Amino acid sequence: MLLKRGILSLIVLLAAQPGWAGIDETKLIDLTYALDEQTVFWPTNRPFTWEKAAWGRTANGYWYASGDFSMSEHGGTHIDAPIHFAEGRLAVDEIPVQKLIAPAVVIDVRSAVEENPDYRLSMRDLETWEARHGPIVQGAVVLMLTGWGKRWPDPIRYLGSSTPSDPKTLHFPGFSKEAADFLVKERHVDGIGIDTPSIDYGSSRDFIVHQIINGANLYGLENVANLEKVPPKGAILVALPIKIRGGTGGPVRIIAILP
Amino acid sequence: MLLKRGILSLIVLLAAQPGWAGIDETKLIDLTYALDEQTVFWPTNRPFTWEKAAWGRTANGYWYASGDFSMSEHGGTHIDAPIHFAEGRLAVDEIPVQKLIAPAVVIDVRSAVEENPDYRLSMRDLETWEARHGPIVQGAVVLMLTGWGKRWPDPIRYLGSSTPSDPKTLHFPGFSKEAADFLVKERHVDGIGIDTPSIDYGSSRDFIVHQIINGANLYGLENVANLEKVPPKGAILVALPIKIRGGTGGPVRIIAILP
Repeated sequence: MLLKRGILSLIVLLAAQPGWAGIDETKLIDLTYALDEQTVFWPTNRPFTWEKAAWGRTANGYWYASGDFSMSEHGGTHIDAPIHFAEGRLAVDEIPVQKLIAPAVVIDVRSAVEENPDYRLSMRDLETWEARHGPIVQGAVVLMLTGWGKRWPDPIRYLGSSTPSDPKTLHFPGFSKEAADFLVKERHVDGIGIDTPSIDYGSSRDFIVHQIINGANLYGLENVANLEKVPPKGAILVALPIKIRGGTGGPVRIIAILP
Repeated sequence: MLLKRGILSLIVLLAAQPGWAGIDETKLIDLTYALDEQTVFWPTNRPFTWEKAAWGRTANGYWYASGDFSMSEHGGTHIDAPIHFAEGRLAVDEIPVQKLIAPAVVIDVRSAVEENPDYRLSMRDLETWEARHGPIVQGAVVLMLTGWGKRWPDPIRYLGSSTPSDPKTLHFPGFSKEAADFLVKERHVDGIGIDTPSIDYGSSRDFIVHQIINGANLYGLENVANLEKVPPKGAILVALPIKIRGGTGGPVRIIAILP
């Protein structure tokens, strides 16, 4: 706790100096896809729609533009709140903001995924990462880098199916049950994330990784962008979701502060 | 720039230590109202609606809950992107993320507002703040604390009118034209924010503060919650909005890291 207080005090003391003029842009990465009508949603979910409510110069002479939008809570770069797959667990507005800032652990399984699009992150992948970088710290968010981002936003390639509207036909990588169990019980992570449509792989029928993560009152981040720009260790993730009262998730803006 | 690199390096180095276990919760404040069907929107804007798309135990035995929602970009705790009141300026997805992390300057005008609900933040208020705390740093976000939060979410009290659906009848405080000009031209702020429905006061007909701020490619934050918990100087604001492509604004999750 003393360490953490120290970090935050230092940030604010230094940032309040007269020399502050914004943040070094090479140190901040936006891990969020823009939302538009091409944004990939889970096939059964309501897609993003947007329309102009006002757009132009008013009779008073000034410019005024405003839009309305509608969407499922689960599409684009978004968060799965614990209540999404676990009855009685936290809704998106109830996740403590302290849990939404965390050290980022990035596990690169791109070469395994090239061989097998149904790949699931294994205990071996976690052991390999820890052998190189040390134990995953408590309170981390573990992000699976599959390379799927290069398929965004083509629904056929990104959902891995020639019939992407049929959820029974999807193919993309995800976490394994064993890895999810280990991260919850042995490493006490705050959440997990991935650069595919789901923390469970496309062929899952029981969504066991969702059940484990949400059941432990933890969150998942899906369709995370630009993960290949984040190092295996040392970055800080800030993932701030829309605050829908009682919501099961929603669009989240995710940034990484690089080391 | 060297100072800023130093801040960020320090955050990530320290945070990656094994002792990290989340953030000291007394140092983080959520400045965001939850969105629900009572959330206050500008009277002419589409309010927030939410409905269950799925909610319960599936035939496969696991729990699954999901919701859909719709809203104007401008309601609840939200951001006004430059394009909202300035043709050709930045849309919400185009605001650099570096501009969304900034030192917070809080100017408390609660006593003036008690006397006059149509109060506008004056040059005198800025001079008084600077006499006590030094010049407002470049890249800051200047937040006006009016005490209006205690009226949330009662539309009659919060919009200051017995006919809150008529925008010509509203009363609440805002910034003055002179203060907005000074903050843009002399202090080079990244944005401004307020704990009322608008950075312009309720009686404004020309929305001159919006025109000045958005015209300078800067953003506004409206309906900011819990501002009375943020000190006049020394906190860091992180304001991450939904990333609507071409959007004029949208819901924003705002946190303050306290000194």
